[in-house]
Amino acid sequence: MPNWLLPENIADVLPSEARKIEELRRRLLDLFRLYGYELVMPPMLEYLESLLCGAGQDLDLRTFKLVDQLSGRTLGVRADMTTQVARIDAHLLNRNSVTRLCYAGSVLHTRPSGLHATREPLQIGAEIYGHAGLEADVEIQELLLASMSLAGMTKVRLDLCHVGVLRAILAQDPLAKQSELALYALLETKDIPGLKEISTDFLEQTRNALLALPNLYGDVNVLEQARQILPKLPEINTALDELAFLVSLIPSDIDAEVTIDLADLRGLHYHSGVTFAAYVHGLPNAVARGGRYDHVGESFGRARPATGFSLDLRELARLLPGAERKDAIMAPWGLEVGLREKIAQLRKQGEIVIQSLPGHKNELDEFDCNRAVVFENGNWILKS
Amino acid sequence: MPNWLLPENIADVLPSEARKIEELRRRLLDLFRLYGYELVMPPMLEYLESLLCGAGQDLDLRTFKLVDQLSGRTLGVRADMTTQVARIDAHLLNRNSVTRLCYAGSVLHTRPSGLHATREPLQIGAEIYGHAGLEADVEIQELLLASMSLAGMTKVRLDLCHVGVLRAILAQDPLAKQSELALYALLETKDIPGLKEISTDFLEQTRNALLALPNLYGDVNVLEQARQILPKLPEINTALDELAFLVSLIPSDIDAEVTIDLADLRGLHYHSGVTFAAYVHGLPNAVARGGRYDHVGESFGRARPATGFSLDLRELARLLPGAERKDAIMAPWGLEVGLREKIAQLRKQGEIVIQSLPGHKNELDEFDCNRAVVFENGNWILKS
Repeated sequence: MPNWLLPENIADVLPSEARKIEELRRRLLDLFRLYGYELVMPPMLEYLESLLCGAGQDLDLRTFKLVDQLSGRTLGVRADMTTQVARIDAHLLNRNSVTRLCYAGSVLHTRPSGLHATREPLQIGAEIYGHAGLEADVEIQELLLASMSLAGMTKVRLDLCHVGVLRAILAQDPLAKQSELALYALLETKDIPGLKEISTDFLEQTRNALLALPNLYGDVNVLEQARQILPKLPEINTALDELAFLVSLIPSDIDAEVTIDLADLRGLHYHSGVTFAAYVHGLPNAVARGGRYDHVGESFGRARPATGFSLDLRELARLLPGAERKDAIMAPWGLEVGLREKIAQLRKQGEIVIQSLPGHKNELDEFDCNRAVVFENGNWILKS
Repeated sequence: MPNWLLPENIADVLPSEARKIEELRRRLLDLFRLYGYELVMPPMLEYLESLLCGAGQDLDLRTFKLVDQLSGRTLGVRADMTTQVARIDAHLLNRNSVTRLCYAGSVLHTRPSGLHATREPLQIGAEIYGHAGLEADVEIQELLLASMSLAGMTKVRLDLCHVGVLRAILAQDPLAKQSELALYALLETKDIPGLKEISTDFLEQTRNALLALPNLYGDVNVLEQARQILPKLPEINTALDELAFLVSLIPSDIDAEVTIDLADLRGLHYHSGVTFAAYVHGLPNAVARGGRYDHVGESFGRARPATGFSLDLRELARLLPGAERKDAIMAPWGLEVGLREKIAQLRKQGEIVIQSLPGHKNELDEFDCNRAVVFENGNWILKS
C-alpha cells in the first residue's frame, strides 16, 4: 500500500477548507465569549474510566484504547469532550455558582457513525453548570441558534425531546429495559417493523407506547397527544410538563421552527432530561445536539446540574461556501534594507506579502497575488 | 483511584491559560499568513508506516499505536506533524512550485521528553517546500524570529547546526554508526565522559571528532575552528560552507544572537542539512526547532526540498504573563423584549454580557463584571 494512503473515514483538510474551518472556529468561540462562556482545553488522552463516566456502552465501543507506558493502565483517546468538561467543572474549578464553559478540539471514533461520517470530528460546544432550571436550557438553545445564524444557516429546525419519556416506559418492563440500546437505534430511525418485532414479548403497555413514540412528532400539540396515548406515569407527565414549559419560555423572536420529536434519542448515553437537536435545510442528520446531563458530575465527586450543546465544526463548515481567495502581494527575494523595510511595512499594514524564492513561480490556493513590490527609480514601490 | 485523576504528564488547560494559548495561536497563524503560509489540517490518526516515513526509531517509540477496526492495520496517533505536512505537499497538493504551509494541532507522546514535559504538546509550525537554496532557510528563520518577537520573547538566541557533520563522521566508521542513537543523546547533553566510554573501540579519527564536537559552539568563528579540528572530509566541508553561507545571508537587522553549536542534534531523526533551535533567556531547552528535511517526500512518491520549524504553543504560552481579565456586563435573566434587545445590542457592539440565572451568583476567571444592565424609569440601561 502506498504511504500516502489515509485510513478510511479519515482525511486531510487542505488550505481553502482549512481556512473556512479556522474562521468559523474563531467566530463561534468569540460568540460563546460574548455570552460569558470561558474557554477550557481538556486533554486528548485520559484514563478510560474517567472518559466513560456516566456514558453508555455506545461511547465505550467508539473509544480507542491504549496502554499507558507510565502507569500500565488503560487510556482512552477522547471520543466526546462533554464528560471531560463536566469533570473540569466538578473537580477543578469547583465553583458553587453557575459556570459557563466552552471548548473546541478533535475527538476520535473507532468506527464512523455513518457511511460518509468522519472518524475525527472537530467538536466545538458550550455548557452551563450549576443551574437546574429550564432557564439554562433556554440560554443554551438560544446560543445554539445564534451559532447557526452566525454560520449563515437559515431555516433551522430545533427538535425537542426528553429522555425521561422512554426511561419511564422502560422502567416498567425489565425485559424491554434489557434491549434499551437496540430500542434507541430503532426509535432513532423510526423503524416501526423493527419495533414490532423486538417488542413481541414486552408488556402490552410498553409495546403500545414504543410503537406510538415514532409518530409523536410535530408542533407543540404533540405534547397533548402524548398525554393521551402514553401510559399515565408520573415521570412521563413531568417530562411532558418540562417540554411544555420550555416551549413557553422560548422567546418568540427566535429565527427557527421549534418542533417536538419524542423519538429523537440519538447519542443520549449520558443525558437526563430535555434534549434537543438542530436540523438545517437539506441535511437529514442533525448539525448540532445537546441537552441535560445532570448526573455526570457525580462520578467526579460533585453532582451539578448541567446542560449544553456541541457540533462538528468540519461538518458545519462543509455547508458553507468556500473561503474567498485573499489578495496578496508578490515581492522578490533579497537582502537590501530598502526591500526588507518595504515588506515589513506592508505586513504591518496587514498585507500578505509572499517573497518569491529565486528560480520559482508560485501556485497558491488561498491567495491571489494581484500586486507586486518592484524596484523603480531607486525605490521599492507597490505596483498592480 | 478517583475518576478525576489525569494520567502523568497530561493536564487540563483552565480558562485564563486557555485564553492565552488561544490568542497566541491566532496571532501566530495570522503572522504565518502575512508571509503567505497556507493553513492545512492533517488528521490525528494515520497508518503507522505513513507517520514514521523517514523518521527514526526515536519517533517510533514515542508514537501511540492502535488497531484499526476497519482495516485491521496498525494506526499511529501522530507524535509530530512534520511528516504529515510533507505528505500533503508531496502527494495531495502536488505543486511544482514553491509551497508554503502552516499548521497547529495536538500531538501525543507515549513518554514525556523530560521530567516535567507534557505528553500532549500543541504543535504549531511553518514549512517551505520546493526550494533547495538557503534562501528558504533564511525565510524560515526570519519567520521563527518574528514569531518569538510577536510572543514578546526578547534576548532570543538562534543556534545553528548541520546534521551533515556527524553523518560524515559516522559514515567513515561502521562500528560508530551502529551507536548513532546513543551518540545523539550523548552529544545533546555534551556528555564527554559518556562519549569517551562509548567510543573506546571506534577509529581514532572518529573518536577525536566526536570528542571535539561538544566544544564546537560559539560565534561564527567556530566554523574556522571546526575546519581545522574535524576530519578533512568533503561532506564536512560542504556542511561548514553551508553554515557559513547561511550566516552571511542572515540580515543584520534581526533581533537575535546567532550562534553555532555543532552538537545540538536533538530530535533530528529526519533532518538532512542545516538545522536550528531558538533559545530564550532563562530556559535551558529550546522553545522552537527546525531545519532541512529534503528526503521525507521521497516515501510519498516525490522528493521535495523542505525546511521548516515548529514549537509547542503551550510551552511558549507558559512564558507569557497571564491573560488580562476582560470587562463584562451582568444582566438579569428575563424574556422581556426590551431586555433582550438591549443585551443583543450590547453583544453586537462586542460587549460580553452574562445573564445571571435566577438564584445564583457568578464566579468568573476570565471576566470582570464591572457594569450591569438594569431597569430604570421604564428602560433597560447600562450602569457601572
